[in-house]
Amino acid sequence: MNLDEKTLTAEYIYKGKILNLRKDKVELPNGREAVREIIEHSGGSAVYCEMDGKVLMVKQFRYPYKKQILEIPAGKLNPGENPETTAIRELEEEGGVRTKTVELIQTVYPSTGYTEEIIYIYRAKDVVKTKTHLDLDEFLDSVWIDKQTLKEMVRKGEINDAKTLIALLSEL
Amino acid sequence: MNLDEKTLTAEYIYKGKILNLRKDKVELPNGREAVREIIEHSGGSAVYCEMDGKVLMVKQFRYPYKKQILEIPAGKLNPGENPETTAIRELEEEGGVRTKTVELIQTVYPSTGYTEEIIYIYRAKDVVKTKTHLDLDEFLDSVWIDKQTLKEMVRKGEINDAKTLIALLSEL
Repeated sequence: MNLDEKTLTAEYIYKGKILNLRKDKVELPNGREAVREIIEHSGGSAVYCEMDGKVLMVKQFRYPYKKQILEIPAGKLNPGENPETTAIRELEEEGGVRTKTVELIQTVYPSTGYTEEIIYIYRAKDVVKTKTHLDLDEFLDSVWIDKQTLKEMVRKGEINDAKTLIALLSEL
Repeated sequence: MNLDEKTLTAEYIYKGKILNLRKDKVELPNGREAVREIIEHSGGSAVYCEMDGKVLMVKQFRYPYKKQILEIPAGKLNPGENPETTAIRELEEEGGVRTKTVELIQTVYPSTGYTEEIIYIYRAKDVVKTKTHLDLDEFLDSVWIDKQTLKEMVRKGEINDAKTLIALLSEL
């Protein structure tokens, strides 16, 4: 069956700091027209980092959910940046860990209906502890949690962030 | 460390069909102000459904990525709808499978930086094959894929949808 949709028009509703909103008119496979609301986002990298049986996690207030959420270190890609570079940078800034090598675990589309975001999930190799250096307006706590505790947290539904679940389900 | 952010003002930029865009001004833990761009979304349910060693998948054109993507059956919550009801409905509409019972696998936040969406991932129990009945403007193919093939696809990075990865990594 032909499933593809053809763009007829594209219009920006909003261009912002971390996202843009676009509204496109498309032609459906049956020839009818429909509207698609699309979030443009630069994408992000996340890093699974293990050391002495513990995994590096960060806890931060996530405004959309109005609460603190436990995640693996992650950050947005700068324009044109290689996702590996983002991963290595965020691991040191947020987690205080230096690495030269990361390996891709998965490439993830967080919500296929409306966002163009792509999240690259890496595993850090040959890591060395150093110091965190957060941006002036960035607030988070980094914490090392042992693998068995994290496994239990996943089992009990206490980890909710998609990229973190995918990393932990893959690596633990 | 205090990590929380306090809402100062909230303004709607756009109210649409599947999402709204809000721009909030917040007070950071250090007293400074920042802007948060937030997508409001009704949330969704997804269903892992296994029968005779095969898993029910759907293939559809996902406009943000401009290509066909393989996912587990899923759909948006109607306003006020119980996520279990959504899961049972979508399983029959998209997948042609009837069930009375679903069990929660995980509750997922797809992208914690900017969307309020919550995705509930269920496992279908005691399933019976019936018929798909898609909406007039809905185009997708349902397909049963054996577990070993899916495991290989996950390993090779051929499954990219977040909810689908989480379901397959949990259940296979």
